[in-house]
Amino acid sequence: MNEFMKMFSLTKPIIQAPMAGGITKPRLASAVSNQGALGSLASGYLTPEILEQQTKEMFELTDAPFQINVFVPSDLEMPSEDQVEKWKKNIPLADQVNQFKSVQEEWDDFYQKIDIILRYKVKACSFTFDLPPEDAVKELKASGCCLIGTASTVEEAMLMEERGMDIVVLQGSEAGGHRGAFLPSKGESAVGLMALVPQAADALGVPVIAAGGMTDHRGVKAALTLGAQGVQIGSAFLICHESNAHAVHKQKVLEANEADTKLTKLFSGKEARGIVNKWMEEKEGYETQTLPYPYQNTLTKPMRQQASLQNNHDQMSLWAGQGIRSLTEEISVKQLLNKLCQEDVKI
Amino acid sequence: MNEFMKMFSLTKPIIQAPMAGGITKPRLASAVSNQGALGSLASGYLTPEILEQQTKEMFELTDAPFQINVFVPSDLEMPSEDQVEKWKKNIPLADQVNQFKSVQEEWDDFYQKIDIILRYKVKACSFTFDLPPEDAVKELKASGCCLIGTASTVEEAMLMEERGMDIVVLQGSEAGGHRGAFLPSKGESAVGLMALVPQAADALGVPVIAAGGMTDHRGVKAALTLGAQGVQIGSAFLICHESNAHAVHKQKVLEANEADTKLTKLFSGKEARGIVNKWMEEKEGYETQTLPYPYQNTLTKPMRQQASLQNNHDQMSLWAGQGIRSLTEEISVKQLLNKLCQEDVKI
Repeated sequence: MNEFMKMFSLTKPIIQAPMAGGITKPRLASAVSNQGALGSLASGYLTPEILEQQTKEMFELTDAPFQINVFVPSDLEMPSEDQVEKWKKNIPLADQVNQFKSVQEEWDDFYQKIDIILRYKVKACSFTFDLPPEDAVKELKASGCCLIGTASTVEEAMLMEERGMDIVVLQGSEAGGHRGAFLPSKGESAVGLMALVPQAADALGVPVIAAGGMTDHRGVKAALTLGAQGVQIGSAFLICHESNAHAVHKQKVLEANEADTKLTKLFSGKEARGIVNKWMEEKEGYETQTLPYPYQNTLTKPMRQQASLQNNHDQMSLWAGQGIRSLTEEISVKQLLNKLCQEDVKI
Repeated sequence: MNEFMKMFSLTKPIIQAPMAGGITKPRLASAVSNQGALGSLASGYLTPEILEQQTKEMFELTDAPFQINVFVPSDLEMPSEDQVEKWKKNIPLADQVNQFKSVQEEWDDFYQKIDIILRYKVKACSFTFDLPPEDAVKELKASGCCLIGTASTVEEAMLMEERGMDIVVLQGSEAGGHRGAFLPSKGESAVGLMALVPQAADALGVPVIAAGGMTDHRGVKAALTLGAQGVQIGSAFLICHESNAHAVHKQKVLEANEADTKLTKLFSGKEARGIVNKWMEEKEGYETQTLPYPYQNTLTKPMRQQASLQNNHDQMSLWAGQGIRSLTEEISVKQLLNKLCQEDVKI
């Protein structure tokens, strides 16, 4: 049993990736925690009220540790009226959006979520999109909460350790969904795990977790061989029975192959890996002109919501990683965890 | 000993990547073969005459098996005069280029190189940039030459097997230098090895080799765990004493980090991973407008040659993979192979 597994008394070195947008609910996260891996709630798009409900529900469904993931807001300026109007004309239903949340409101939400984590004594809190602010880190650490940062590069990982993270998740270029990159880089910040894990493991003193593209025991063993203490899995949990992902999203993941995904900023303004669909193809020429997150995300929300209601994959964000060729049937969390850890994992 | 190692009586499951552009010469390739791994000559940019000289030299330097890599030409139309003139204005010294090699000349070169491989009974021939033509495959196989294809996706790998390849090199997104992708893909054809290797190993009957981002024994063991029978290493050989890479290129690889590289078409018209330099930054906006390979490559050649003579890294192509943070000193081929296989590799 390695340091990471000891922290949470796990029997499997696996974290279920916190997938926002309604994919991860207590049913999935508790099923994972109950099997000896680390389940995750994804608070990114939730109101504090709904997060509190989900947290209560988690404690009803499991006695095992779980984490809550929060998005760290950016102090970005609002885009200009002109830019917003241009995109409103370019995105179906975007004219339904009357206003954006202010940066202050984003931070208020963030601290309300931290407060829930503290009040309910949630075992772990993970952060995406930036270094968490020092005051939140201090308070969470004082309460005994384990802190998990998300990094794309070794430099980001080192900053996360310096900020006080107990664990750093290394997001490989293979990973589906939003990229956690927060530093500008000279080249590409999307680095394959085969290169990222050993280089980060050498540079860090805290345990690192590999995330991206792994779907079975070979990936888990390879990641541990490279120096990771655990593996974070997204797409393979997304298609589980217990996952709340849209049926159309699951179907697309089951059908797609490893070269059907790409990184796009079109849906949210931040790079995220998803299965290429009609909306992405149509708007490809606008990739470099998106509004910053969360503004682009807010403008595409009505379109995405309508697409979900109409089972229309052409306008949904179909987040998925590069391991999807091997995902061909919906199985249970228990079956998946057996597939991930079917042989003894040397740790 | 696995099937791949048996084919060449290797003691180490390692291929030295065939790095064109003068990096790989008989000194490097023979040092690798003499240590029980598979050395490679890179004929891509060589005339048949120089390839023949290097082949003779290899047989003087080693009795062990080695391979020759050849680029498979494309039957592309010549770009228009207008496009060429536009780029001539945009690339230093490009006006020195008076004419391009014709497609017929490219194919003539290709078959002359195949002829050298046959005449000298070279043990293995690897192909990059496309499926090799059926007549060459037939003749090489009849002579007992082992054929190695390069693939970026599972679909490409399956076509390579169907075309008669005995081994398929899976080029992960981590890899430095030119991408061997030859099929259009819906999304990104650059797939991380952690996802690519197990999915390809499941789909193929012939041995697969993992290429990209690996620099030590952890990477080698992880790749074998994922289902590869061997590992192809580029950047780590590039900086060896025996490598003929330009001193400035070596120095840049020793200094750079994992997020300092990106894929660019600016130097050659084909995607290749290199360390970002001034030329790449200046011309970033033209990425989508490059001439097809080999025309863009021909136009940038005088600039790259002058940059080499002047030790000017700003205008050289500094190919490198994503494992380069861990490459910090120039070592010998023997030392590198010990680093790659320092513990017993279970095969």
